[in-house]
Amino acid sequence: MASRSIRLAVIPGDGIGPEVVAEGLKVLEAVAPSGGLKFEQTSYDLGAARWHRTGETLPDSVLGELREQEVILLGAVGDPSVPSGVLERGLLLRTRFELDHYVNLRPVKLFPGVTTPLAGVTPDDIDMVVVREGTEGPYTGVGGVLRKGTRHEVATQESVNTAFGVERVIRYAFEVAASRPRKHLTLVHKDNVLTFAGDLYQRTLKRVGEEYPQVTTAYTHVDAATMFFVNDPGRFDVVVTDNLFGDIITDIGAAIAGGIGLAASGNVNPDRTAPSMFEPVHGSAPDIAGQGKADPTATILSVAMLLDHVGAGDAARRVERAVSDDLGERAALGARSTAQIGDAIAKRVSG
Amino acid sequence: MASRSIRLAVIPGDGIGPEVVAEGLKVLEAVAPSGGLKFEQTSYDLGAARWHRTGETLPDSVLGELREQEVILLGAVGDPSVPSGVLERGLLLRTRFELDHYVNLRPVKLFPGVTTPLAGVTPDDIDMVVVREGTEGPYTGVGGVLRKGTRHEVATQESVNTAFGVERVIRYAFEVAASRPRKHLTLVHKDNVLTFAGDLYQRTLKRVGEEYPQVTTAYTHVDAATMFFVNDPGRFDVVVTDNLFGDIITDIGAAIAGGIGLAASGNVNPDRTAPSMFEPVHGSAPDIAGQGKADPTATILSVAMLLDHVGAGDAARRVERAVSDDLGERAALGARSTAQIGDAIAKRVSG
Ligand SMILES: CC(C)[C@H](C(=O)O)[C@@H](O)C(=O)O
Ligand SMILES: CC(C)[C@H](C(=O)O)[C@@H](O)C(=O)O
Repeated sequence: MASRSIRLAVIPGDGIGPEVVAEGLKVLEAVAPSGGLKFEQTSYDLGAARWHRTGETLPDSVLGELREQEVILLGAVGDPSVPSGVLERGLLLRTRFELDHYVNLRPVKLFPGVTTPLAGVTPDDIDMVVVREGTEGPYTGVGGVLRKGTRHEVATQESVNTAFGVERVIRYAFEVAASRPRKHLTLVHKDNVLTFAGDLYQRTLKRVGEEYPQVTTAYTHVDAATMFFVNDPGRFDVVVTDNLFGDIITDIGAAIAGGIGLAASGNVNPDRTAPSMFEPVHGSAPDIAGQGKADPTATILSVAMLLDHVGAGDAARRVERAVSDDLGERAALGARSTAQIGDAIAKRVSG
Repeated sequence: MASRSIRLAVIPGDGIGPEVVAEGLKVLEAVAPSGGLKFEQTSYDLGAARWHRTGETLPDSVLGELREQEVILLGAVGDPSVPSGVLERGLLLRTRFELDHYVNLRPVKLFPGVTTPLAGVTPDDIDMVVVREGTEGPYTGVGGVLRKGTRHEVATQESVNTAFGVERVIRYAFEVAASRPRKHLTLVHKDNVLTFAGDLYQRTLKRVGEEYPQVTTAYTHVDAATMFFVNDPGRFDVVVTDNLFGDIITDIGAAIAGGIGLAASGNVNPDRTAPSMFEPVHGSAPDIAGQGKADPTATILSVAMLLDHVGAGDAARRVERAVSDDLGERAALGARSTAQIGDAIAKRVSG
């Protein structure tokens, strides 16, 4: 079988980023042949080190090169030595916004054998997908500061929401819901306080929902939703929400599904006008960097999402099964290094 | 002993509001004599019923009367028959803003004997106070909608943060932290994305903190904080945060501390330029209204906070102890009605 070649940009980033990305790539390489795929990798040196060296976060030229790729794998960026927001806004969010990653896809799934901090909960209770809006809302960066440093300082942040942006992410969420057995979609917002944005989300849910009579819908305020994540996660199937609420609830999602070491995500441009980017939800964890302690599982599950995105569903399922099997045995295996976990999963997918 | 007379406004509200308020007042009446207090109550008919009847949420004249009271006890407002936001913005938030309730005080405490959804967690692990800003941030209502209902609609919400507003709530939080054994204060925000507002909070924490060398401080992004509430709540002592983040994390706080039926809150004007308002965190729960099923404990604990606010610390401790004792026996007692729980706690405080 002739193999299909896919241009893959790799951004290892900072802290544990390079370590977990190495394992993600190991698994990707191991599974690629079975899917008839070949990845042509280009690595991009972006993150804290480059910023210290050159003051650059994401130069236009690099952004231009990224646009020419088919798909991107990112480890993690950020370091305490860089002022908060510089890399987040200048690199991570800039990529999401410039490449129009309007769907931030975050599965929340408890795999068998994984310990959850919740009492009496089983894998059947935690199996949802959060569809987080990725290109507007409170993340626009609109806002400013007046009379900084004085007693009369005013700092504003504006959440900007458009019919265009809200409709496309809600439509995507309906598609995801329609493809799942339960076919249930919950809108999470705070429409009793953020009345303008909440109303736009609600009206759009209703209008687009008419095209999906097979999908049932519900609405939950974000505060109540966080509570239900903890004491009744089984009520959720697919969740659609704005950029900031999605950021928050997917971290609780990670916590209840066994921790941030397992949470995968995709910054997806469903229209494919630019490459999508897959990354673990966790950060760069500089405190454990370089020690082989990081769990590469979130990156490996992000690789599975990447495979799905490039149309290699069989390979994606293989990776997921390998991860699931590995997780099932972890309790018995004791502590393993980052590379040992990657090796074990790579072996399963190539076997 | 001559008793001190306190003007108390009571807003029973909708749904289970009147039921839980009745029990809160029962306990207040039972404990008052021991504290040398007498409450002169005035009840205000506000909420869904009044809105349906008259279209009013909070008439200026009623607001004027409320201003003349010393303290307010509120049950819950809201009903599905009222469009989302009408009562929240027009009554609840209007009261908080007009009466300058800049501290929204929400203890998160696991009482002995109470079941938490978290595995392996004890009362020692969950004992914090969240100091939520109450008069600015994303709750201002600033924002609007352009081209409503068209494909070109834009809906905005603006978070407005002032040096004045941020400093006073942070200063209050330092005072709370300084009064507690651990003396630890965590700022929760999202300063890597909401850079203008986050920076104002960070700078203010640092500056005001210089006046409290005995208090240690930490910073946690809101997304990570929600995760820690679930898998490491013991790291928190006092938390200070903005209006929206506070809304969200205190619902997770309620969930981990045994549910919304136990979560108390105070909307506090520490400068006493207007009455403070105490209310359970839960809503009006119309689905169980009128059935005697509601748990009045959150309201009773809010009454304890009210007593603290009017300077009756001994009576407040008495109510807390009675609640704690009652909670410790609940598992053995089986189901009780709203009034039975109120009776039992009232008996303990008067005994
Ligand atoms: C690092 C930060 C900008 C980012 C976000 O807020 O989206 C992260 O928390 C995430 O969830 O991917
Ligand atoms: C009802 C609503 C406006 C309110 C809020 O968001 O503050 C509630 O959730 C609360 O926490 O008191």
